[in-house]
Amino acid sequence: MRGDLPAPSAAQIDIVEVGPRDGLQNESRVWPTEDKISLIGEAIAYGAKRIEVASFVNPRRVPQMADAEAVVAGCANAPGVTRIGLALNLRGAERALATGIEQVGAVAVASDAFGIRNQGQDRAESVGIAAGIVEMARRSGRSAQVTIAVAFGCPFEGAVDRALVIDIARALAAAQPVEIALADTIGIAGPGEVAALVAEVRTAVAPLPVRVHFHDTRNTANANIWAAVQAGASVADASLGGLGGCPFAAQAPGTAAGNIATEDMIYMLHRSGIGTGIDESRLYRAGRWLDRKLKGSSRSKVLVALPPGS
Amino acid sequence: MRGDLPAPSAAQIDIVEVGPRDGLQNESRVWPTEDKISLIGEAIAYGAKRIEVASFVNPRRVPQMADAEAVVAGCANAPGVTRIGLALNLRGAERALATGIEQVGAVAVASDAFGIRNQGQDRAESVGIAAGIVEMARRSGRSAQVTIAVAFGCPFEGAVDRALVIDIARALAAAQPVEIALADTIGIAGPGEVAALVAEVRTAVAPLPVRVHFHDTRNTANANIWAAVQAGASVADASLGGLGGCPFAAQAPGTAAGNIATEDMIYMLHRSGIGTGIDESRLYRAGRWLDRKLKGSSRSKVLVALPPGS
Repeated sequence: MRGDLPAPSAAQIDIVEVGPRDGLQNESRVWPTEDKISLIGEAIAYGAKRIEVASFVNPRRVPQMADAEAVVAGCANAPGVTRIGLALNLRGAERALATGIEQVGAVAVASDAFGIRNQGQDRAESVGIAAGIVEMARRSGRSAQVTIAVAFGCPFEGAVDRALVIDIARALAAAQPVEIALADTIGIAGPGEVAALVAEVRTAVAPLPVRVHFHDTRNTANANIWAAVQAGASVADASLGGLGGCPFAAQAPGTAAGNIATEDMIYMLHRSGIGTGIDESRLYRAGRWLDRKLKGSSRSKVLVALPPGS
Repeated sequence: MRGDLPAPSAAQIDIVEVGPRDGLQNESRVWPTEDKISLIGEAIAYGAKRIEVASFVNPRRVPQMADAEAVVAGCANAPGVTRIGLALNLRGAERALATGIEQVGAVAVASDAFGIRNQGQDRAESVGIAAGIVEMARRSGRSAQVTIAVAFGCPFEGAVDRALVIDIARALAAAQPVEIALADTIGIAGPGEVAALVAEVRTAVAPLPVRVHFHDTRNTANANIWAAVQAGASVADASLGGLGGCPFAAQAPGTAAGNIATEDMIYMLHRSGIGTGIDESRLYRAGRWLDRKLKGSSRSKVLVALPPGS
């Protein structure tokens, strides 16, 4: 039956597993280094080719990521796997580049208020610093990715001007990251605006690909991913088990809440005939492993719906 | 910002609130008649124009619906509101038509195995009986809707042949219901197949509209609704608070689990510029009312994400 579906707009989507960084950074409990390394191992085992493994940020502000160097050292590079380390400033990028990491991740913000609270930078500063991080990584012989946070709305300023996001995307593209990402950091977007913004940014940054990052705070993440895929996005972030932020964190403005679960995104894409290179049954095994670690509080609906023993 | 979104394929979607029937029928607790009537009142208050209020089925098999006549009698018709009563056979339709109900709902099945277990009819029998119910309602001066259950997959037989679903839709359309509905009864569909089937059935039954009914068992419901809207569906079912079946019911084949929450569907549609005629803030008030009734176990993510006091 599935073979005769009409061809989707994309036959293949690449994914980035963000659980070890975006996920664990937003859990209240600080995971031991060896457990983080096991989680990264599970992601490699299910077939993730790009994994956000750590964030090189101030350990006093983000104790969950204080062991970033140890995590990178502990997860020896697997063939064909790109480990991504996040940095919000040049000092963080220097720390990341001092490790064996393959890719540095930078973050620009689409609103001043969010940028100042999240990383002590207004919008223009964040774009300049992100571009600088990308260039620093490239000079060190590594690649870099860049994400535009709160691209669909800000918890403090409300609506975000689409023309502004397109300008930011264009400025960042000039620094030559591997792609430009649009993040719905607070899980507020709907698929109509996602389709529109992805299409416009795609045109603005071509031939660079567009990556998307959605939170399921309001049950729109899979719809947004579907709309983004239809509009030509070619990479999507997801977090095993929906790791990262409890659903109630949405009430604290600016908090990342409810990453889309990798299991739920992959189920939807595969069921619609879109390839991801992910081993679906091994992914569900990884999801069960995480669910045990979380004492049964995985937020993947697909995991709950799986027949027992599968 | 939202005013300059590109026009969606549909500017307006009608909704059917199914919580009082599909929702309550699948809750383990039997609600008192007066609470059912209060729930219907909440739906009318938030702006629902069509509401599944009861099911006229064997009270020994479905004790939750044993008071169907009392529920209909208790919720006097509000101006412009269509109350729908479900019937699975002619005897049920007679019971429904003996009340003041405006619309009868019939169900045909796309698989023999599901039909025999759900309503003691194989596929062909169910199509004949559903068509008979539609005609009986029309002869009584009422309208009728009809739903094709397990249209995207059967818990017993697996894949369902799309050509078969289109044939069923065409046969039912001949009886002149108000629309033809495609139901993903077990929450297994992805948006690719939804877009394809909605488009084909739309062509097959034109000028009749297509309605869709999705369960969020695997976190695909809103994506499926979005794909259906893009493909030209013009009516969608939803259940306040996601009422109906606990998420674990997916493990019992054939059980309806995890209706899409009305709050989550409406948020997505309104955010994407699609009108529904629903008063969104009153809807959330209804959602909070239900959440109190359910002792905090509403399954609407939007409800959880609402700022306190809103």
